Amino acid sequence: STRRPREHRVKGFTHCQREHLGTRLLSEQLPVDLVRSVTCQVCHHLLSEPVQAPCRHVFCHGCIVRYCRALGPYCPACSQPCSALDLTAPANVFLALLNSLPLRCPTRTCGEQVRLDGFRAHCEAHQLEDEGGRGTPPAACDDLTPNKGG
Amino acid sequence: STRRPREHRVKGFTHCQREHLGTRLLSEQLPVDLVRSVTCQVCHHLLSEPVQAPCRHVFCHGCIVRYCRALGPYCPACSQPCSALDLTAPANVFLALLNSLPLRCPTRTCGEQVRLDGFRAHCEAHQLEDEGGRGTPPAACDDLTPNKGG
Ligand SMILES: [Zn+2]
Ligand SMILES: [Zn+2]
Ligand SMILES: [Zn+2]
Ligand SMILES: [Zn+2]
Ligand SMILES: [Zn+2]
Ligand SMILES: [Zn+2]
Ligand SMILES: [Zn+2]
Ligand SMILES: [Zn+2]
Repeated sequence: STRRPREHRVKGFTHCQREHLGTRLLSEQLPVDLVRSVTCQVCHHLLSEPVQAPCRHVFCHGCIVRYCRALGPYCPACSQPCSALDLTAPANVFLALLNSLPLRCPTRTCGEQVRLDGFRAHCEAHQLEDEGGRGTPPAACDDLTPNKGG
Repeated sequence: STRRPREHRVKGFTHCQREHLGTRLLSEQLPVDLVRSVTCQVCHHLLSEPVQAPCRHVFCHGCIVRYCRALGPYCPACSQPCSALDLTAPANVFLALLNSLPLRCPTRTCGEQVRLDGFRAHCEAHQLEDEGGRGTPPAACDDLTPNKGG
């Protein structure tokens, strides 16, 4: 339908909902403005391969490229000019913060806190443990119900 | 004058302009939303002894206490209820980020990048070097001109 709210249209448009991680995985009650600063303002997931526009807004690389291709070379957050050539790597201190964010493993029997940069490997290890297929699938951003199977 | 813009009135009201550090000290071109997340929304300085309200907005402890005493127990950012009893320490991952922010030393002959949690000690060391009084004063948030004296 073309009547879905904008957020859902953008999610469809960026095709990232199976790959990116949702902010609900954050295991601590972090300040809302900090959560916003590590959230892509195009897809509303945790930033994945973040790049910085000249206006210093930050997006997933895939999201900003697809957004600008579809809607023109302007920042989705502030509408200042922003072409693919203008994108740069964010400061290391920011990337270090992002990578160190604590996420909660959604596997029912686990619940561990895992750093963002170790999260995928952690989830893949659960899959290997549970080869039979009765385990929890790896966490996609919109699929955090921990006990579907069983 | 009572006609100064609101920001200046609040700065006067919180009496922190000689103590807190300005965001212009940040030595890197950090994402704007990250800078916002480490800025007190009462005084607009870098957060000093931050505390978190139930709505997960964060302020300098002194600022939110003075603000609520003057204007009532409501969050300055979102107007949800917020009394002194509701304030908690922000998550450690947030405090670690704040303390690790790289600031630029404003002493003319230095210009080093210094972590926020080592910044005051660094500036005090410059003062000791320059006992004669010809050195640059320690950085106050609104006083970053590095070469006033001579
Ligand atoms: Zn996404
Ligand atoms: Zn994105
Ligand atoms: Zn922008
Ligand atoms: Zn786990
Ligand atoms: Zn202040
Ligand atoms: Zn403040
Ligand atoms: Zn609030
Ligand atoms: Zn210095």
